[in-house]
Amino acid sequence: MRPCVALLSDFGSHDVYVGVMKGVVARIAPEASLIDLTHEIPPADVRQGAFRLWQALPFMPRGTVFLAVVDPGVGTSRRPLAVRCDEFSCVGPDNGIFTYLLEGRRDARAVQIERVDSLADLGARARSSTFHGRDVFAPAAGLIAAGMEVARLGSPAADPVTVPWPRLSCEEPQRLLRGETLFADRYGNMVTSIGLLARDGDTLRLDPWVPGCPSLALAASQLSIQVGSGLPLPLARTFAEVPPGRALAFIGSDNLLEIGVNRGSAVDSLNLVPGTDVILRWR
Amino acid sequence: MRPCVALLSDFGSHDVYVGVMKGVVARIAPEASLIDLTHEIPPADVRQGAFRLWQALPFMPRGTVFLAVVDPGVGTSRRPLAVRCDEFSCVGPDNGIFTYLLEGRRDARAVQIERVDSLADLGARARSSTFHGRDVFAPAAGLIAAGMEVARLGSPAADPVTVPWPRLSCEEPQRLLRGETLFADRYGNMVTSIGLLARDGDTLRLDPWVPGCPSLALAASQLSIQVGSGLPLPLARTFAEVPPGRALAFIGSDNLLEIGVNRGSAVDSLNLVPGTDVILRWR
Amino acid sequence: MRPCVALLSDFGSHDVYVGVMKGVVARIAPEASLIDLTHEIPPADVRQGAFRLWQALPFMPRGTVFLAVVDPGVGTSRRPLAVRCDEFSCVGPDNGIFTYLLEGRRDARAVQIERVDSLADLGARARSSTFHGRDVFAPAAGLIAAGMEVARLGSPAADPVTVPWPRLSCEEPQRLLRGETLFADRYGNMVTSIGLLARDGDTLRLDPWVPGCPSLALAASQLSIQVGSGLPLPLARTFAEVPPGRALAFIGSDNLLEIGVNRGSAVDSLNLVPGTDVILRWR
Repeated sequence: MRPCVALLSDFGSHDVYVGVMKGVVARIAPEASLIDLTHEIPPADVRQGAFRLWQALPFMPRGTVFLAVVDPGVGTSRRPLAVRCDEFSCVGPDNGIFTYLLEGRRDARAVQIERVDSLADLGARARSSTFHGRDVFAPAAGLIAAGMEVARLGSPAADPVTVPWPRLSCEEPQRLLRGETLFADRYGNMVTSIGLLARDGDTLRLDPWVPGCPSLALAASQLSIQVGSGLPLPLARTFAEVPPGRALAFIGSDNLLEIGVNRGSAVDSLNLVPGTDVILRWR
Repeated sequence: MRPCVALLSDFGSHDVYVGVMKGVVARIAPEASLIDLTHEIPPADVRQGAFRLWQALPFMPRGTVFLAVVDPGVGTSRRPLAVRCDEFSCVGPDNGIFTYLLEGRRDARAVQIERVDSLADLGARARSSTFHGRDVFAPAAGLIAAGMEVARLGSPAADPVTVPWPRLSCEEPQRLLRGETLFADRYGNMVTSIGLLARDGDTLRLDPWVPGCPSLALAASQLSIQVGSGLPLPLARTFAEVPPGRALAFIGSDNLLEIGVNRGSAVDSLNLVPGTDVILRWR
Repeated sequence: MRPCVALLSDFGSHDVYVGVMKGVVARIAPEASLIDLTHEIPPADVRQGAFRLWQALPFMPRGTVFLAVVDPGVGTSRRPLAVRCDEFSCVGPDNGIFTYLLEGRRDARAVQIERVDSLADLGARARSSTFHGRDVFAPAAGLIAAGMEVARLGSPAADPVTVPWPRLSCEEPQRLLRGETLFADRYGNMVTSIGLLARDGDTLRLDPWVPGCPSLALAASQLSIQVGSGLPLPLARTFAEVPPGRALAFIGSDNLLEIGVNRGSAVDSLNLVPGTDVILRWR
């Protein structure tokens, strides 16, 4: 089976950083398939990186090695990690970027990377204190893609750092869910933390992705959705259910509630910013 | 032969949408070579997507599967299409995005995709109504790249939707061609609809790409070219034939007439916008 | 061994130019691994292209074919080049873009590309005078990746064009090095020409990358670094050695001196622009 290495970073596209990481992987694992998830994570935004990895995971080939470098702590004592699960591996800084990928995975085994220098032949230039993506994480990802056991890369690492989950709480006596806006996509739709949602006729099932929230089954026709202090929004199946220019809520492709505007941008029309309360009420 | 899947979309690079489509293709066809054409089509601009596919086609490997997702109608009743020709296949929404690729191809066989769910193992998350790129088109492209007959993906689809061609008309009695500006490239050159052009000494041969226009052979030295109400432009072979800062017309790499400025930007210097009349007169 | 083709250009991501070059390579060398270095070189900035290639070289697989297209002279008499060294090959315009890659390589053999048309089957559309990336350089890179001898592509080319090196001079009597700011990365760090640097305890070794500068060993604690007429900056090992918002100098991942600001942007805070004097003084 051809191994897949999926790359995510905050490196952007103007420098050769991403290309150089791929070069290092290709030196060690020439057969690997290299897939960019995105390199446009806002600089140092570890939580957005964690979320993007969570979005991608269910759709990547079994055995994918996630190489994720959003690393504001490079050069400090933060640990370099490699983690092996049954379904995938991941390599990157121990700053919480794998929090959502690893949630509930009892099969995850993390090691602190210590032996990349001796395992991969990287040359004298590959010993920076500012670019572990190239000098530590890409070689580790290449070695895993080439078949090496993760355990050989270093010693077991307990208690990886985690980042907070997006806010999502259920207040059942008040019959409401309280979430938050997360970020916008290219079309101006705003993704929220309310989910995972599945609709079957008039039944909306909520099977929360954030730990600690109960599952619910609600009547879709009896919901009210509000962002910040805005007007109530309808839960629609398609954008065409509301007139052009009107806002709506819908179940997005990650099974999270999203806010959109038919033939427009919800971000622009409603002045949406991340971190705003989103309330879903039911009767 | 290693199959090639060429991707085009309006997804941009900030989200993981493109990476996730590639992950789905790689699950089904791990040996496929994945080539990005562009993901910067302006949102919902189906005609620009159609043009970009037309630009790329002659240069891609035989048997390429084009996976094109500019899909403002996702979630409505627009059909999901897969089309097989002798030289290539294409997969995407039935909204006209393949109009220019398929022009004159009597060997094209289109099907409405119906069976992706049962043919590819995609998991419960892959059933969105808003991201058919991931849930319908990428699996279909992967299946074709892995060798499946297009006919197995669904039932025959008659009369695919088409988009209008760029404007190009020939008024022979008046000895003029009337075309339009299409769009600018990164250097500020403006591509027009006048073509296909080939020059051999002083002879300019026009072999129109737009249906319904006659072929012509003109004297290159006796042409006059005008954009909107601007001044006449010379037809040059190289930018250096005019002084720095001066505008010129030239035969671009798609064999279409383009407008440029030596060491400058035609778009900025001439305030060019798409959709403006371009007139080529001859004596 | 699977061949690697590394692409660099000033094409940006809005057009299909890069995808089309990859298509041409994949037609000729379907097994090649295609790695993008960057396509965001500022239009016509050959020196930045040369620097980016230099950054990437040590990390790419042995035998990589560099396909570099920053080509403001396309359509003029500038020669199309292919160069073979023991460790890598490169293909692109003869405008100096390979100056830093080829420095000191006595094993480099350059040819003027003349025979691509007859060696690769490219079709009638592939004869533009404005897109040699697609019609000359990509086919040549594909042929080399597929195993063809570079010498078969044309006739020997003497004296390839070179671009100037970044400024770096050593004034030992005055105990100073005079370099310049080069460009900023995405995080607002400014790369300078002072290097290559390696630090071992308090010893800072300078082993210049620019021809003509002597090697030096200096006491890191007795240095003073100044950009333009700015205040002296400390040479730090990590950003955390200075308070948030404060500027520092550090050895970047290319072993060049860089200017940064802890939790900030040096470019914005210090109003840095390329081409400014950077002085390193020692006692």
